[in-house]
Amino acid sequence: MDALNQEADFKVYTPETVKDPDEIKMALTWKAPAGSYSHYPNLQVIGSMGAGVDHLFEDPSLPQHVRLTRVVDAKLSRDMQEFVLAQCLNHIKNLSSYAQSQEQSLWKPMEYGRAAEVTVGILGFGTLGQAVGKKLANVGFQVSGWAKSAKQVAGIKSYTEDQLDVFLESCHILVCLLPLTEDTNGILNNTLFQKLPKGSYLINVARGGHLNDEDLIQSLNSGQLSGAALDVFNIEPLSTDHPFWKRKEILITPHVASMSNAKSVAPQVIENYHRMERGEELLNVVSRDKKY
Amino acid sequence: MDALNQEADFKVYTPETVKDPDEIKMALTWKAPAGSYSHYPNLQVIGSMGAGVDHLFEDPSLPQHVRLTRVVDAKLSRDMQEFVLAQCLNHIKNLSSYAQSQEQSLWKPMEYGRAAEVTVGILGFGTLGQAVGKKLANVGFQVSGWAKSAKQVAGIKSYTEDQLDVFLESCHILVCLLPLTEDTNGILNNTLFQKLPKGSYLINVARGGHLNDEDLIQSLNSGQLSGAALDVFNIEPLSTDHPFWKRKEILITPHVASMSNAKSVAPQVIENYHRMERGEELLNVVSRDKKY
Repeated sequence: MDALNQEADFKVYTPETVKDPDEIKMALTWKAPAGSYSHYPNLQVIGSMGAGVDHLFEDPSLPQHVRLTRVVDAKLSRDMQEFVLAQCLNHIKNLSSYAQSQEQSLWKPMEYGRAAEVTVGILGFGTLGQAVGKKLANVGFQVSGWAKSAKQVAGIKSYTEDQLDVFLESCHILVCLLPLTEDTNGILNNTLFQKLPKGSYLINVARGGHLNDEDLIQSLNSGQLSGAALDVFNIEPLSTDHPFWKRKEILITPHVASMSNAKSVAPQVIENYHRMERGEELLNVVSRDKKY
Repeated sequence: MDALNQEADFKVYTPETVKDPDEIKMALTWKAPAGSYSHYPNLQVIGSMGAGVDHLFEDPSLPQHVRLTRVVDAKLSRDMQEFVLAQCLNHIKNLSSYAQSQEQSLWKPMEYGRAAEVTVGILGFGTLGQAVGKKLANVGFQVSGWAKSAKQVAGIKSYTEDQLDVFLESCHILVCLLPLTEDTNGILNNTLFQKLPKGSYLINVARGGHLNDEDLIQSLNSGQLSGAALDVFNIEPLSTDHPFWKRKEILITPHVASMSNAKSVAPQVIENYHRMERGEELLNVVSRDKKY
């Protein structure tokens, strides 16, 4: 922050160092306590420090007139692409299963999948979802994407809102990259799992709130899902007595698929500050209707 | 075999069903017992059913005048590419480490690697090695390759025989895809590991004979290597009391990186039979000097 202050044409404060609340025009935040924004009467822009903005809408006192932005970061996108690719390959090549065989000194070859014969469905085919889908398609996976509106991506079949069922029928692996909104909260539930081919695999790298934990356990017990890779949870860190920990079919990672990077985030935050000052259109504006 | 016999202009026998040994001109084999070939005085071609041919040279009675071929299979190559990619990503994204944390219900984020910042060295940069290298480079890894002779592959730095040390110095991940010969037997030993950057990761998908098992354990103990993914072993199946099973830094897979596929192998075997009959040059001939 000091380095920024030295050369910048603006001042940066933390909530604790603000002397004059009237001076604050822009807030950069990640999961700030509810009510944090009401202290600043001249606030014009609230920028989420990450790609997700569900934390903003959780605050009932979020000022209505303030514009909201989020981070769209190529590096964050590349990290997510690599992480999802790692999980898809880990699954089709049985690497976690072999690690479990190893605990019993068990030499047990298994049939493996080939990318060209596996369809990965991207649930949430926005900017990030399309980048992940392209990466998977480039490696050789069959890829399909689902979003509210149709997208044109070469080599990837795009499904729209009313085509969810037919989209799900084709997925051997389902990757959740949805924004968390009222519409998508708890969307990963038994009703959805039943529409997937039996034995499908779930990868959730979006938000814990998308998943109904009980339903996942049920779908694993019934064999409707063969397994899941979960990077996000309803409560993080995942409590030590949560049943997910003990499930061999679940691979838990501690919210590490992608991490915001100060070096790539700072320039777009500064750019938005200048655009705000000049009264120009902001980058990566969040829709209050869509909530993403 | 019956299906082949019905339409083919040749007959197929197993060793047990041969009536007239003089009739046999070509043998298709995989790890046949020593001395198997001396029974057939008119043998012209021995075809290995896999990419490796070390099993042929292990037989001291291998007839000198017989031509040797191996399988070069695009599907086998794709399987190997995907398997090595899966292991590289599994390593940089710490997926095996997270599975181990999970056993203790432990939420412990770790620093992760990014493909663009990781150099994967392909030790054995022949046909298969180049295909694997291209796949990794395409996903975003830095890739270098080492072979006896220089190769021209876009975006990949190729090192030759006398540049082994400088090649090794650059590798964060070393992938062994060498043929097994007298020169390469036991090449994965302490002397080689010492030339890698400290904390490097080893992936052996070639032959168990390339690896000195004791030296791997030593290099893991000293931290010179951070871990290894091993798909091949000096004796397979790996005996239940082998120390590798208990090492958390080793991921053991039971020789499953790629498996020869009858549907893609059969046509090139039949093609070679016809070439032999017509006195033409064979496909995928093995050099008796190089032994690959």
